[in-house]
Amino acid sequence: MPPDYHLPLMQATSPTGSSPAFALPLRVYWEDTDAGGVVFYANYLKFFERARTEWLRAAGVAQQRLRESTGAIFVVSDTTVRYLRPARLDDQLRVTVCLQELGRASLLIHQQAWRVVEADNAAQPGTSPPEPDALLAEGSIRIGCVDAQTFKPRRIPAEVLERLSA
Amino acid sequence: MPPDYHLPLMQATSPTGSSPAFALPLRVYWEDTDAGGVVFYANYLKFFERARTEWLRAAGVAQQRLRESTGAIFVVSDTTVRYLRPARLDDQLRVTVCLQELGRASLLIHQQAWRVVEADNAAQPGTSPPEPDALLAEGSIRIGCVDAQTFKPRRIPAEVLERLSA
Amino acid sequence: MPPDYHLPLMQATSPTGSSPAFALPLRVYWEDTDAGGVVFYANYLKFFERARTEWLRAAGVAQQRLRESTGAIFVVSDTTVRYLRPARLDDQLRVTVCLQELGRASLLIHQQAWRVVEADNAAQPGTSPPEPDALLAEGSIRIGCVDAQTFKPRRIPAEVLERLSA
Amino acid sequence: MPPDYHLPLMQATSPTGSSPAFALPLRVYWEDTDAGGVVFYANYLKFFERARTEWLRAAGVAQQRLRESTGAIFVVSDTTVRYLRPARLDDQLRVTVCLQELGRASLLIHQQAWRVVEADNAAQPGTSPPEPDALLAEGSIRIGCVDAQTFKPRRIPAEVLERLSA
Repeated sequence: MPPDYHLPLMQATSPTGSSPAFALPLRVYWEDTDAGGVVFYANYLKFFERARTEWLRAAGVAQQRLRESTGAIFVVSDTTVRYLRPARLDDQLRVTVCLQELGRASLLIHQQAWRVVEADNAAQPGTSPPEPDALLAEGSIRIGCVDAQTFKPRRIPAEVLERLSA
Repeated sequence: MPPDYHLPLMQATSPTGSSPAFALPLRVYWEDTDAGGVVFYANYLKFFERARTEWLRAAGVAQQRLRESTGAIFVVSDTTVRYLRPARLDDQLRVTVCLQELGRASLLIHQQAWRVVEADNAAQPGTSPPEPDALLAEGSIRIGCVDAQTFKPRRIPAEVLERLSA
Repeated sequence: MPPDYHLPLMQATSPTGSSPAFALPLRVYWEDTDAGGVVFYANYLKFFERARTEWLRAAGVAQQRLRESTGAIFVVSDTTVRYLRPARLDDQLRVTVCLQELGRASLLIHQQAWRVVEADNAAQPGTSPPEPDALLAEGSIRIGCVDAQTFKPRRIPAEVLERLSA
Repeated sequence: MPPDYHLPLMQATSPTGSSPAFALPLRVYWEDTDAGGVVFYANYLKFFERARTEWLRAAGVAQQRLRESTGAIFVVSDTTVRYLRPARLDDQLRVTVCLQELGRASLLIHQQAWRVVEADNAAQPGTSPPEPDALLAEGSIRIGCVDAQTFKPRRIPAEVLERLSA
């Protein structure tokens, strides 16, 4: 994995290497942890959502404006997440977004959270070699488009479809 | 569904009606909602966990004491959740726990979050009939037993196995 | 302090003993803790709010209905909190609400979070005497009444003023 | 205020203009909001803490390593926060850190959360002039140094004192 997690937003290769994925760097703070000393598992859904939000923003889709102009909001309808390794306070993470399906009223997105080795840790001479990047959690998130008032399903606005299929 | 959600902890019939399920009543507070006006989906994982914790406690398993006496903690390894209907501020929920599999080192639990009709709303004369209870979200949560220091899998303490299989 | 924290909602004596205070029992779950092994301090604001919400509800004020019928919502404008002792997983807390000032557009509320000794722990023969109840955190919360759309200050609806000054 | 919030970490002028303050840029996500459509007030304590953590890190203090090497952790003992204006989904914030007192066992820190105008919004020709930066919330946070096991107060490690007073 390229150690480019310093960039606020970046492109990364997808799990299969075939198509580009979006990635967001995140730091683990006290608020993210629990008494087990590790990141509370429900918080990976928050990390995944931050990454999806920035992925949409990078594609030109701001959710607050979308709601005001079209009355549409995106809601999560299904989540499947596997938790593989714990993350700890101060860990640097990279959360990826990979669009798997783009339908008329819903999206399916595959996401991963990685712990990344920081450059200053990686480069210390005379120390043991740094740990490689490690996959902490991954999952699939289905997003539906609904009317903000009624929460009834509706088509994704054409402008958004265009931007996401570009 | 019996309108017995006033009890702090209660027995309920399982989804299939075949075996008993545990249920915890919960109220929706401001902290649980998001700008969509509804409960933030990641918070159902918190609701599910509160119910599992009270289910364990009702079976005589206190997690803090378990950790101190055996070094074992339970961690979530897989979650699959479907979100069906939104919950709103002040809604009264009932969250169920139904043990599906009990292995040597892990559990699989099926959980549901229901919105329940409150007695004072249900009984108002001259008003339209109350909404029936509604299933808001459901999912399966796999729990593994690990060593609190190393996070390596370990057998569930015999005392816990006995209490859960009783 | 009376050990009546088993009741879902209860009356308690105020810090000064002069006027009644409202109290809500709460349990500490994994979601409330951080990697320090104790309740994350920001979560006391959530605990305080749950207690204020139930205090309002006990006085006949449901916030969701209030918003729909009058367009008014309560917002927090100032918080001052002292953190005295840590709470841990599985601890049983009691959070109190004591109205200090009731103005035309705002309220000042004093709140405390106590750790309470549970009856089953308190009664074990042959063990050391239980810890007494302990004050964990306390603070003052100023609440303003605003228009839900504009967030501009407005008078507290007369119906609410009456209920709170009763 | 200089519109330099694009930088991951930055120096900013303090409220009084007399001494430098540290600032962290943050984005408002769904997880931060509540059903009022705005950032849930308790979350400003999280924002303040993220900024303090990065301020410490910029000074060379990593809290996880500090705990492992000295057994010391920082805990919040007092918070006073005023909430002035609401923040909404997608808002770009800047959270400042200004050290006010540095004692042997505690720190007092003044913090502010600002909404900042984004460059792409600010520069649109033919539109109304952008809103100026707005102060949303500010407060004072007292931090104590305690032993991670006993939570008893202890002196701040000399290495940390040196770095913070530099």
